[in-house]
Amino acid sequence: MDKLYIIKIGGQVIDQPEKLKAFLKDFAAVPGKKMLVHGGGKLATQMAEQMQVPQQMVEGRRITDAATLKIVTMVYAGYINKNIVAALQSFACNALGLSGADGNAVLAHKRTGAKMDYGFAGDVDQVNAPLLSSLLHQDITPVLAPITHDGKGQLLNTNADTLSQEAATALSRFFEVHLLYTFEKPGVLMDTGDEASVIPIMDPARYEAMKKNDLVFAGMIPKLDNAFHALDRGVNRIVIGQAEALPDLITGKKGTSIVHGNQ
Amino acid sequence: MDKLYIIKIGGQVIDQPEKLKAFLKDFAAVPGKKMLVHGGGKLATQMAEQMQVPQQMVEGRRITDAATLKIVTMVYAGYINKNIVAALQSFACNALGLSGADGNAVLAHKRTGAKMDYGFAGDVDQVNAPLLSSLLHQDITPVLAPITHDGKGQLLNTNADTLSQEAATALSRFFEVHLLYTFEKPGVLMDTGDEASVIPIMDPARYEAMKKNDLVFAGMIPKLDNAFHALDRGVNRIVIGQAEALPDLITGKKGTSIVHGNQ
Repeated sequence: MDKLYIIKIGGQVIDQPEKLKAFLKDFAAVPGKKMLVHGGGKLATQMAEQMQVPQQMVEGRRITDAATLKIVTMVYAGYINKNIVAALQSFACNALGLSGADGNAVLAHKRTGAKMDYGFAGDVDQVNAPLLSSLLHQDITPVLAPITHDGKGQLLNTNADTLSQEAATALSRFFEVHLLYTFEKPGVLMDTGDEASVIPIMDPARYEAMKKNDLVFAGMIPKLDNAFHALDRGVNRIVIGQAEALPDLITGKKGTSIVHGNQ
Repeated sequence: MDKLYIIKIGGQVIDQPEKLKAFLKDFAAVPGKKMLVHGGGKLATQMAEQMQVPQQMVEGRRITDAATLKIVTMVYAGYINKNIVAALQSFACNALGLSGADGNAVLAHKRTGAKMDYGFAGDVDQVNAPLLSSLLHQDITPVLAPITHDGKGQLLNTNADTLSQEAATALSRFFEVHLLYTFEKPGVLMDTGDEASVIPIMDPARYEAMKKNDLVFAGMIPKLDNAFHALDRGVNRIVIGQAEALPDLITGKKGTSIVHGNQ
Protein backbone atom coordinates (compact mmCIF):
# COMPACT_ATOMS: atom_id res chain seq x y z
CA MET A 1 0.00 0.00 0.00
CA ASP A 2 1.12 3.57 -0.71
CA LYS A 3 1.95 5.77 2.24
CA LEU A 4 -0.44 8.65 2.87
CA TYR A 5 0.30 11.54 5.18
CA ILE A 6 -2.78 13.21 6.64
CA ILE A 7 -1.69 16.38 8.34
CA LYS A 8 -3.84 18.53 10.57
CA ILE A 9 -3.03 22.18 11.21
CA GLY A 10 -4.78 24.18 13.85
CA GLY A 11 -5.63 27.78 14.48
CA GLN A 12 -2.30 28.81 16.00
CA VAL A 13 -0.58 28.47 12.64
CA ILE A 14 -3.52 29.69 10.56
CA ASP A 15 -3.63 32.96 12.51
CA GLN A 16 -0.01 33.81 11.66
CA PRO A 17 0.42 34.44 7.90
CA GLU A 18 4.22 34.03 7.88
CA LYS A 19 4.13 30.83 9.92
CA LEU A 20 1.32 29.49 7.74
CA LYS A 21 3.26 30.22 4.57
CA ALA A 22 6.38 28.49 5.92
CA PHE A 23 4.28 25.52 7.01
CA LEU A 24 2.58 25.24 3.60
CA LYS A 25 5.95 25.34 1.87
CA ASP A 26 7.11 22.44 4.05
CA PHE A 27 3.81 20.64 3.45
CA ALA A 28 4.15 21.04 -0.32
CA ALA A 29 7.61 19.43 -0.07
CA VAL A 30 6.34 16.30 1.72
CA PRO A 31 7.01 13.54 -0.81
CA GLY A 32 4.27 11.21 -2.04
CA LYS A 33 0.58 11.29 -1.26
CA LYS A 34 -0.68 13.74 1.32
CA MET A 35 -3.77 15.49 2.51
CA LEU A 36 -4.30 18.54 4.71
CA VAL A 37 -7.08 19.07 7.25
CA HIS A 38 -7.36 22.54 8.70
CA GLY A 39 -9.18 24.07 11.62
CA GLY A 40 -10.47 27.54 12.09
CA GLY A 41 -8.48 30.10 13.97
CA LYS A 42 -9.46 33.45 15.33
CA LEU A 43 -10.81 34.94 12.10
CA ALA A 44 -14.28 33.47 12.62
CA THR A 45 -14.41 34.99 16.11
CA GLN A 46 -13.24 38.35 14.76
CA MET A 47 -15.83 38.24 11.98
CA ALA A 48 -18.54 37.37 14.49
CA GLU A 49 -17.53 40.37 16.59
CA GLN A 50 -17.51 42.64 13.55
CA MET A 51 -20.94 41.36 12.53
CA GLN A 52 -22.18 41.51 16.13
CA VAL A 53 -23.01 37.83 16.32
CA PRO A 54 -22.41 36.77 19.96
CA GLN A 55 -20.28 33.62 20.29
CA GLN A 56 -20.63 30.92 22.92
CA MET A 57 -17.95 28.31 23.54
CA VAL A 58 -18.47 25.18 25.64
CA GLU A 59 -15.50 22.89 26.34
CA GLY A 60 -13.55 24.38 23.45
CA ARG A 61 -16.38 23.85 20.99
CA ARG A 62 -18.24 26.68 19.41
CA ILE A 63 -22.02 26.67 19.73
CA THR A 64 -23.04 26.96 16.12
CA ASP A 65 -26.27 28.90 15.71
CA ALA A 66 -27.47 29.80 12.20
CA ALA A 67 -25.59 33.12 12.08
CA THR A 68 -22.40 31.43 13.31
CA LEU A 69 -22.74 28.62 10.77
CA LYS A 70 -22.87 31.24 8.04
CA ILE A 71 -19.67 32.81 9.38
CA VAL A 72 -17.72 29.56 9.78
CA THR A 73 -18.82 28.43 6.31
CA MET A 74 -17.49 31.69 4.86
CA VAL A 75 -14.29 31.69 6.88
CA TYR A 76 -13.33 27.99 7.00
CA ALA A 77 -14.60 26.71 3.63
CA GLY A 78 -14.08 30.05 1.87
CA TYR A 79 -11.35 32.36 3.06
CA ILE A 80 -9.01 29.95 4.87
CA ASN A 81 -9.48 26.98 2.57
CA LYS A 82 -9.03 28.93 -0.68
CA ASN A 83 -6.03 30.88 0.56
CA ILE A 84 -4.34 27.66 1.67
CA VAL A 85 -5.09 26.06 -1.70
CA ALA A 86 -3.77 29.08 -3.65
CA ALA A 87 -0.58 29.12 -1.55
CA LEU A 88 -0.03 25.37 -2.09
CA GLN A 89 -0.55 25.82 -5.84
CA SER A 90 2.19 28.47 -5.76
CA PHE A 91 4.47 25.85 -4.17
CA ALA A 92 3.74 23.41 -7.01
CA CYS A 93 1.40 21.28 -4.90
CA ASN A 94 -1.81 20.51 -6.80
CA ALA A 95 -4.18 21.16 -3.91
CA LEU A 96 -7.95 20.97 -4.13
CA GLY A 97 -10.11 22.30 -1.30
CA LEU A 98 -13.14 20.42 -0.10
CA SER A 99 -15.88 20.91 2.40
CA GLY A 100 -17.71 17.75 3.41
CA ALA A 101 -20.50 18.62 0.97
CA ASP A 102 -18.16 18.64 -2.04
CA GLY A 103 -18.38 15.30 -3.78
CA ASN A 104 -20.14 14.13 -0.61
CA ALA A 105 -16.67 14.00 0.95
CA VAL A 106 -17.89 13.88 4.56
CA LEU A 107 -21.40 13.00 5.61
CA ALA A 108 -22.37 13.99 9.14
CA HIS A 109 -25.43 14.41 11.32
CA LYS A 110 -26.45 17.24 13.59
CA ARG A 111 -25.35 16.39 17.11
CA THR A 112 -28.36 15.46 19.21
CA GLY A 113 -28.96 13.96 22.61
CA ALA A 114 -26.08 15.83 24.22
CA LYS A 115 -26.70 17.68 27.47
CA MET A 116 -26.03 20.88 25.51
CA ASP A 117 -27.56 22.01 22.25
CA TYR A 118 -24.49 22.58 20.09
CA GLY A 119 -26.60 23.99 17.25
CA PHE A 120 -25.37 23.13 13.76
CA ALA A 121 -22.51 20.96 15.00
CA GLY A 122 -21.90 17.85 12.91
CA ASP A 123 -20.69 14.46 14.06
CA VAL A 124 -19.12 12.48 11.24
CA ASP A 125 -20.97 9.46 9.85
CA GLN A 126 -18.88 8.66 6.79
CA VAL A 127 -15.80 9.87 4.97
CA ASN A 128 -15.93 9.26 1.22
CA ALA A 129 -12.64 7.36 1.02
CA PRO A 130 -13.14 6.30 -2.63
CA LEU A 131 -13.44 9.97 -3.70
CA LEU A 132 -10.39 11.06 -1.70
CA SER A 133 -8.43 8.03 -2.88
CA SER A 134 -9.35 8.76 -6.49
CA LEU A 135 -8.18 12.38 -6.14
CA LEU A 136 -4.93 11.24 -4.48
CA HIS A 137 -4.28 8.79 -7.32
CA GLN A 138 -4.66 11.73 -9.73
CA ASP A 139 -1.84 13.43 -7.76
CA ILE A 140 -4.29 15.89 -6.27
CA THR A 141 -3.81 16.92 -2.65
CA PRO A 142 -7.16 17.30 -0.86
CA VAL A 143 -7.41 20.19 1.60
CA LEU A 144 -10.32 19.49 3.91
CA ALA A 145 -12.22 22.28 5.69
CA PRO A 146 -14.08 21.42 8.91
CA ILE A 147 -17.52 22.01 7.38
CA THR A 148 -19.58 18.91 6.63
CA HIS A 149 -23.14 18.23 5.44
CA ASP A 150 -26.02 15.96 6.33
CA GLY A 151 -27.01 14.97 2.79
CA LYS A 152 -30.28 16.86 3.18
CA GLY A 153 -28.92 20.28 2.28
CA GLN A 154 -27.70 21.28 5.74
CA LEU A 155 -24.08 22.30 6.27
CA LEU A 156 -22.60 21.49 9.69
CA ASN A 157 -19.62 22.72 11.70
CA THR A 158 -17.30 19.83 12.59
CA ASN A 159 -14.29 19.55 14.88
CA ALA A 160 -11.13 19.38 12.75
CA ASP A 161 -9.34 16.90 15.06
CA THR A 162 -12.20 14.45 14.81
CA LEU A 163 -12.46 15.05 11.07
CA SER A 164 -8.75 14.23 10.61
CA GLN A 165 -9.15 11.04 12.54
CA GLU A 166 -12.24 9.93 10.67
CA ALA A 167 -10.50 10.64 7.36
CA ALA A 168 -7.43 8.72 8.51
CA THR A 169 -9.37 5.64 9.56
CA ALA A 170 -11.52 5.64 6.40
CA LEU A 171 -8.46 5.97 4.16
CA SER A 172 -6.64 3.14 5.98
CA ARG A 173 -8.50 0.76 3.67
CA PHE A 174 -6.57 2.25 0.74
CA PHE A 175 -3.29 3.55 2.17
CA GLU A 176 -0.74 3.08 4.92
CA VAL A 177 -1.90 6.17 6.80
CA HIS A 178 0.36 8.37 8.90
CA LEU A 179 -1.73 10.94 10.77
CA LEU A 180 0.10 14.04 11.99
CA TYR A 181 -1.48 16.45 14.44
CA THR A 182 0.43 19.69 14.55
CA PHE A 183 -0.07 22.05 17.47
CA GLU A 184 1.85 24.58 19.56
CA LYS A 185 3.89 22.08 21.64
CA PRO A 186 6.80 19.97 20.33
CA GLY A 187 5.01 16.74 21.26
CA VAL A 188 3.59 14.95 24.27
CA LEU A 189 5.66 16.22 27.19
CA MET A 190 6.80 14.26 30.24
CA ASP A 191 6.86 17.57 32.12
CA THR A 192 4.43 20.19 30.78
CA GLY A 193 6.79 22.95 31.88
CA ASP A 194 9.75 21.55 29.95
CA GLU A 195 9.56 21.58 26.16
CA ALA A 196 12.66 19.37 26.03
CA SER A 197 10.80 16.54 27.76
CA VAL A 198 9.10 15.21 24.60
CA ILE A 199 8.21 11.53 24.75
CA PRO A 200 9.42 10.27 21.34
CA ILE A 201 7.37 7.07 21.25
CA MET A 202 4.23 6.17 23.08
CA ASP A 203 2.43 2.86 23.04
CA PRO A 204 -0.72 1.72 24.84
CA ALA A 205 1.13 0.21 27.83
CA ARG A 206 3.14 3.36 28.45
CA TYR A 207 0.05 5.55 28.06
CA GLU A 208 -1.94 3.54 30.58
CA ALA A 209 0.93 3.65 33.08
CA MET A 210 1.31 7.41 32.64
CA LYS A 211 -2.43 8.03 33.01
CA LYS A 212 -2.48 5.93 36.18
CA ASN A 213 0.28 8.07 37.66
CA ASP A 214 -1.33 11.38 36.58
CA LEU A 215 1.58 12.09 34.28
CA VAL A 216 -0.60 13.06 31.31
CA PHE A 217 -1.68 16.69 30.99
CA ALA A 218 -5.50 16.71 31.12
CA GLY A 219 -5.80 18.68 27.89
CA MET A 220 -3.90 15.95 26.03
CA ILE A 221 -6.12 13.07 27.16
CA PRO A 222 -8.88 13.44 24.53
CA LYS A 223 -6.22 13.83 21.79
CA LEU A 224 -4.35 10.73 22.97
CA ASP A 225 -7.48 8.66 23.51
CA ASN A 226 -8.50 9.53 19.96
CA ALA A 227 -5.05 8.66 18.68
CA PHE A 228 -5.07 5.18 20.20
CA HIS A 229 -8.61 4.67 18.98
CA ALA A 230 -7.43 5.56 15.45
CA LEU A 231 -4.62 2.97 15.69
CA ASP A 232 -7.22 0.37 16.62
CA ARG A 233 -9.16 1.36 13.51
CA GLY A 234 -6.28 0.80 11.09
CA VAL A 235 -4.17 3.95 11.13
CA ASN A 236 -0.49 3.03 10.95
CA ARG A 237 1.10 5.80 13.03
CA ILE A 238 0.05 9.03 14.67
CA VAL A 239 2.49 11.85 15.28
CA ILE A 240 1.88 14.84 17.51
CA GLY A 241 4.25 17.79 17.24
CA GLN A 242 4.94 21.36 16.23
CA ALA A 243 3.90 22.70 12.83
CA GLU A 244 7.32 24.34 12.43
CA ALA A 245 8.99 20.91 12.69
CA LEU A 246 6.91 19.26 9.94
CA PRO A 247 9.84 17.75 7.99
CA ASP A 248 11.17 16.20 11.22
CA LEU A 249 7.73 14.95 12.22
CA ILE A 250 7.53 13.11 8.89
CA THR A 251 10.86 11.36 9.45
CA GLY A 252 10.14 10.74 13.14
CA LYS A 253 13.09 12.82 14.35
CA LYS A 254 10.79 15.09 16.33
CA GLY A 255 7.37 14.93 17.94
CA THR A 256 5.69 12.04 19.68
CA SER A 257 4.92 8.98 17.58
CA ILE A 258 1.97 7.00 18.82
CA VAL A 259 2.23 3.39 17.79
CA HIS A 260 0.86 -0.08 18.43
CA GLY A 261 2.41 -1.93 21.34
CA ASN A 262 4.13 -4.43 19.09
CA GLN A 263 6.22 -1.85 17.19
CA MET B 1 -18.80 13.48 -28.11
CA ASP B 2 -20.92 13.58 -24.95
CA LYS B 3 -23.18 16.56 -24.46
CA LEU B 4 -22.23 18.89 -21.62
CA TYR B 5 -24.51 21.58 -20.24
CA ILE B 6 -22.69 24.51 -18.65
CA ILE B 7 -25.23 26.61 -16.84
CA LYS B 8 -24.60 30.03 -15.38
CA ILE B 9 -26.81 31.47 -12.66
CA GLY B 10 -26.60 35.05 -11.60
CA GLY B 11 -27.30 37.07 -8.52
CA GLN B 12 -31.04 37.54 -9.06
CA VAL B 13 -31.65 33.85 -8.36
CA ILE B 14 -28.97 33.49 -5.70
CA ASP B 15 -30.51 36.28 -3.64
CA GLN B 16 -33.87 34.50 -3.41
CA PRO B 17 -33.60 31.26 -1.39
CA GLU B 18 -36.87 29.74 -2.65
CA LYS B 19 -36.11 30.53 -6.31
CA LEU B 20 -32.57 29.21 -5.86
CA LYS B 21 -33.84 25.97 -4.35
CA ALA B 22 -36.33 25.46 -7.20
CA PHE B 23 -33.61 26.22 -9.75
CA LEU B 24 -31.18 23.76 -8.14
CA LYS B 25 -33.84 21.06 -8.14
CA ASP B 26 -34.33 21.63 -11.88
CA PHE B 27 -30.57 21.72 -12.40
CA ALA B 28 -30.12 18.42 -10.55
CA ALA B 29 -32.71 16.87 -12.89
CA VAL B 30 -30.85 17.88 -16.09
CA PRO B 31 -29.83 14.54 -17.59
CA GLY B 32 -26.24 13.73 -18.48
CA LYS B 33 -23.13 15.75 -17.83
CA LYS B 34 -23.50 19.24 -16.45
CA MET B 35 -21.64 21.98 -14.67
CA LEU B 36 -22.80 25.06 -12.80
CA VAL B 37 -21.10 28.46 -12.73
CA HIS B 38 -22.46 30.94 -10.24
CA GLY B 39 -22.07 34.65 -9.71
CA GLY B 40 -22.28 36.65 -6.57
CA GLY B 41 -25.44 38.42 -5.60
CA LYS B 42 -26.13 41.01 -3.00
CA LEU B 43 -24.68 39.15 -0.02
CA ALA B 44 -21.15 40.40 -0.69
CA THR B 45 -22.43 43.99 -0.79
CA GLN B 46 -24.38 43.45 2.45
CA MET B 47 -21.32 41.92 4.13
CA ALA B 48 -19.18 44.84 2.97
CA GLU B 49 -21.70 47.27 4.48
CA GLN B 50 -21.79 45.33 7.73
CA MET B 51 -18.00 45.27 7.86
CA GLN B 52 -17.81 48.92 6.77
CA VAL B 53 -15.77 48.20 3.66
CA PRO B 54 -16.80 50.83 1.06
CA GLN B 55 -17.65 49.34 -2.35
CA GLN B 56 -16.99 50.91 -5.73
CA MET B 57 -18.60 49.63 -8.92
CA VAL B 58 -17.49 50.66 -12.42
CA GLU B 59 -19.49 49.48 -15.46
CA GLY B 60 -21.08 46.71 -13.40
CA ARG B 61 -17.74 45.42 -12.15
CA ARG B 62 -16.74 45.60 -8.54
CA ILE B 63 -13.41 47.26 -7.77
CA THR B 64 -11.74 44.55 -5.74
CA ASP B 65 -9.45 45.99 -3.09
CA ALA B 66 -7.84 43.64 -0.54
CA ALA B 67 -10.72 43.92 1.95
CA THR B 68 -13.27 43.30 -0.80
CA LEU B 69 -11.33 40.30 -2.11
CA LYS B 70 -11.50 38.79 1.36
CA ILE B 71 -15.28 39.31 1.41
CA VAL B 72 -15.95 37.90 -2.08
CA THR B 73 -13.71 34.91 -1.34
CA MET B 74 -15.73 34.20 1.79
CA VAL B 75 -19.11 34.81 0.19
CA TYR B 76 -18.67 33.36 -3.32
CA ALA B 77 -16.24 30.47 -2.74
CA GLY B 78 -17.49 29.82 0.81
CA TYR B 79 -21.08 30.60 1.66
CA ILE B 80 -22.75 30.58 -1.77
CA ASN B 81 -20.69 27.77 -3.28
CA LYS B 82 -21.03 25.40 -0.32
CA ASN B 83 -24.74 26.02 0.15
CA ILE B 84 -25.36 25.34 -3.54
CA VAL B 85 -23.29 22.15 -3.34
CA ALA B 86 -25.10 20.95 -0.19
CA ALA B 87 -28.49 21.64 -1.82
CA LEU B 88 -27.50 19.77 -5.00
CA GLN B 89 -26.30 16.82 -2.91
CA SER B 90 -29.74 16.74 -1.27
CA PHE B 91 -31.23 16.47 -4.79
CA ALA B 92 -29.00 13.46 -5.55
CA CYS B 93 -26.63 15.47 -7.74
CA ASN B 94 -23.01 14.71 -6.84
CA ALA B 95 -21.80 18.33 -6.91
CA LEU B 96 -18.27 19.43 -6.07
CA GLY B 97 -17.51 23.11 -5.60
CA LEU B 98 -14.37 24.65 -7.01
CA SER B 99 -12.68 27.99 -6.99
CA GLY B 100 -10.14 28.53 -9.73
CA ALA B 101 -7.35 27.69 -7.28
CA ASP B 102 -8.75 24.21 -6.56
CA GLY B 103 -6.89 21.70 -8.69
CA ASN B 104 -5.65 24.75 -10.62
CA ALA B 105 -9.12 24.80 -12.23
CA VAL B 106 -8.84 28.36 -13.55
CA LEU B 107 -5.61 30.27 -13.91
CA ALA B 108 -5.94 34.04 -14.31
CA HIS B 109 -3.86 37.19 -14.11
CA LYS B 110 -4.52 40.46 -12.36
CA ARG B 111 -6.05 42.86 -14.86
CA THR B 112 -3.51 45.50 -15.81
CA GLY B 113 -3.26 48.21 -18.42
CA ALA B 114 -6.93 49.16 -18.15
CA LYS B 115 -7.83 52.82 -17.73
CA MET B 116 -9.12 51.90 -14.29
CA ASP B 117 -7.36 49.95 -11.56
CA TYR B 118 -9.80 47.13 -10.89
CA GLY B 119 -7.71 45.88 -7.96
CA PHE B 120 -7.69 42.09 -7.54
CA ALA B 121 -9.76 41.44 -10.65
CA GLY B 122 -8.66 38.41 -12.63
CA ASP B 123 -8.80 37.88 -16.40
CA VAL B 124 -8.82 34.20 -17.29
CA ASP B 125 -5.74 32.68 -18.91
CA GLN B 126 -6.58 29.01 -18.81
CA VAL B 127 -9.35 26.68 -17.73
CA ASN B 128 -8.12 23.24 -16.65
CA ALA B 129 -10.34 21.27 -19.02
CA PRO B 130 -8.62 17.91 -18.29
CA LEU B 131 -9.44 18.26 -14.56
CA LEU B 132 -13.07 19.26 -15.19
CA SER B 133 -13.45 16.55 -17.81
CA SER B 134 -12.02 13.95 -15.43
CA LEU B 135 -14.48 14.99 -12.70
CA LEU B 136 -17.38 14.91 -15.18
CA HIS B 137 -16.39 11.41 -16.27
CA GLN B 138 -16.53 10.36 -12.60
CA ASP B 139 -20.17 11.62 -12.62
CA ILE B 140 -19.22 14.58 -10.50
CA THR B 141 -20.90 17.93 -11.24
CA PRO B 142 -18.44 20.82 -10.85
CA VAL B 143 -19.86 24.00 -9.31
CA LEU B 144 -17.53 26.85 -10.19
CA ALA B 145 -17.27 29.99 -8.04
CA PRO B 146 -16.06 33.20 -9.70
CA ILE B 147 -12.81 33.30 -7.72
CA THR B 148 -9.64 32.39 -9.62
CA HIS B 149 -5.90 32.44 -8.84
CA ASP B 150 -2.71 33.54 -10.53
CA GLY B 151 -0.59 30.49 -9.67
CA LYS B 152 1.56 32.62 -7.39
CA GLY B 153 -0.68 32.42 -4.36
CA GLN B 154 -2.98 35.33 -5.21
CA LEU B 155 -6.74 34.82 -5.41
CA LEU B 156 -8.60 37.01 -7.92
CA ASN B 157 -12.22 38.08 -8.41
CA THR B 158 -13.48 37.08 -11.86
CA ASN B 159 -16.63 37.92 -13.78
CA ALA B 160 -18.89 34.85 -13.81
CA ASP B 161 -20.16 35.43 -17.38
CA THR B 162 -16.63 35.46 -18.75
CA LEU B 163 -15.71 32.47 -16.58
CA SER B 164 -18.65 30.46 -17.99
CA GLN B 165 -17.58 31.28 -21.50
CA GLU B 166 -13.94 30.40 -20.94
CA ALA B 167 -14.97 27.10 -19.33
CA ALA B 168 -17.32 26.38 -22.25
CA THR B 169 -14.70 27.01 -24.91
CA ALA B 170 -12.01 25.02 -23.07
CA LEU B 171 -14.35 22.06 -22.57
CA SER B 172 -15.39 22.09 -26.25
CA ARG B 173 -12.32 19.97 -26.92
CA PHE B 174 -13.88 17.19 -24.83
CA PHE B 175 -17.64 17.67 -25.10
CA GLU B 176 -20.44 19.01 -27.27
CA VAL B 177 -20.97 22.06 -25.09
CA HIS B 178 -24.30 23.79 -24.59
CA LEU B 179 -23.80 27.00 -22.63
CA LEU B 180 -26.86 28.41 -20.87
CA TYR B 181 -26.90 31.89 -19.41
CA THR B 182 -29.84 32.35 -17.10
CA PHE B 183 -30.92 35.84 -16.17
CA GLU B 184 -34.06 37.81 -15.30
CA LYS B 185 -35.51 38.09 -18.86
CA PRO B 186 -37.06 35.22 -20.83
CA GLY B 187 -34.49 35.64 -23.63
CA VAL B 188 -33.28 38.21 -26.13
CA LEU B 189 -36.31 40.41 -26.75
CA MET B 190 -37.34 42.05 -30.02
CA ASP B 191 -39.06 44.73 -27.96
CA THR B 192 -37.50 45.28 -24.50
CA GLY B 193 -40.91 46.30 -23.13
CA ASP B 194 -42.59 43.09 -24.27
CA GLU B 195 -41.54 39.86 -22.58
CA ALA B 196 -43.47 37.90 -25.20
CA SER B 197 -41.18 39.16 -27.97
CA VAL B 198 -38.43 36.59 -27.36
CA ILE B 199 -36.31 35.85 -30.44
CA PRO B 200 -36.12 32.02 -30.38
CA ILE B 201 -33.09 31.66 -32.65
CA MET B 202 -30.35 34.11 -33.45
CA ASP B 203 -27.52 33.65 -35.88
CA PRO B 204 -24.69 36.01 -36.88
CA ALA B 205 -26.52 37.49 -39.90
CA ARG B 206 -29.64 38.31 -37.93
CA TYR B 207 -27.57 39.79 -35.09
CA GLU B 208 -25.63 42.10 -37.44
CA ALA B 209 -28.84 43.27 -39.09
CA MET B 210 -30.46 43.96 -35.72
CA LYS B 211 -27.42 45.83 -34.41
CA LYS B 212 -27.34 47.97 -37.58
CA ASN B 213 -30.97 48.96 -37.01
CA ASP B 214 -30.49 49.65 -33.27
CA LEU B 215 -32.82 46.81 -32.38
CA VAL B 216 -30.50 45.29 -29.75
CA PHE B 217 -30.77 46.56 -26.18
CA ALA B 218 -27.38 48.06 -25.32
CA GLY B 219 -27.02 46.00 -22.15
CA MET B 220 -27.31 42.79 -24.20
CA ILE B 221 -24.55 43.65 -26.66
CA PRO B 222 -21.55 42.47 -24.57
CA LYS B 223 -23.44 39.23 -23.69
CA LEU B 224 -24.28 38.58 -27.34
CA ASP B 225 -20.83 39.52 -28.65
CA ASN B 226 -19.38 37.06 -26.12
CA ALA B 227 -21.87 34.42 -27.17
CA PHE B 228 -20.95 34.63 -30.86
CA HIS B 229 -17.29 34.67 -29.92
CA ALA B 230 -17.82 31.45 -27.95
CA LEU B 231 -19.46 29.80 -30.98
CA ASP B 232 -16.39 30.72 -33.02
CA ARG B 233 -14.27 29.02 -30.39
CA GLY B 234 -16.07 25.69 -30.53
CA VAL B 235 -19.14 25.96 -28.30
CA ASN B 236 -22.09 24.19 -29.91
CA ARG B 237 -25.02 26.31 -28.76
CA ILE B 238 -25.64 29.17 -26.38
CA VAL B 239 -29.00 29.73 -24.76
CA ILE B 240 -30.08 32.87 -22.93
CA GLY B 241 -33.22 32.72 -20.81
CA GLN B 242 -34.89 32.74 -17.44
CA ALA B 243 -33.64 30.57 -14.58
CA GLU B 244 -37.24 29.52 -13.81
CA ALA B 245 -37.53 28.02 -17.30
CA LEU B 246 -34.41 25.83 -17.09
CA PRO B 247 -36.05 22.58 -18.30
CA ASP B 248 -37.44 24.44 -21.35
CA LEU B 249 -34.11 26.15 -22.02
CA ILE B 250 -32.48 22.72 -22.18
CA THR B 251 -34.97 21.44 -24.76
CA GLY B 252 -34.96 24.74 -26.68
CA LYS B 253 -38.68 25.40 -26.09
CA LYS B 254 -37.91 28.69 -24.37
CA GLY B 255 -35.16 31.31 -24.37
CA THR B 256 -33.00 32.49 -27.23
CA SER B 257 -30.70 29.95 -28.83
CA ILE B 258 -27.61 31.46 -30.37
CA VAL B 259 -26.28 29.31 -33.16
CA HIS B 260 -23.93 29.27 -36.13
CA GLY B 261 -25.35 30.68 -39.36
CA ASN B 262 -25.40 27.29 -41.03
CA GLN B 263 -27.73 25.68 -38.49
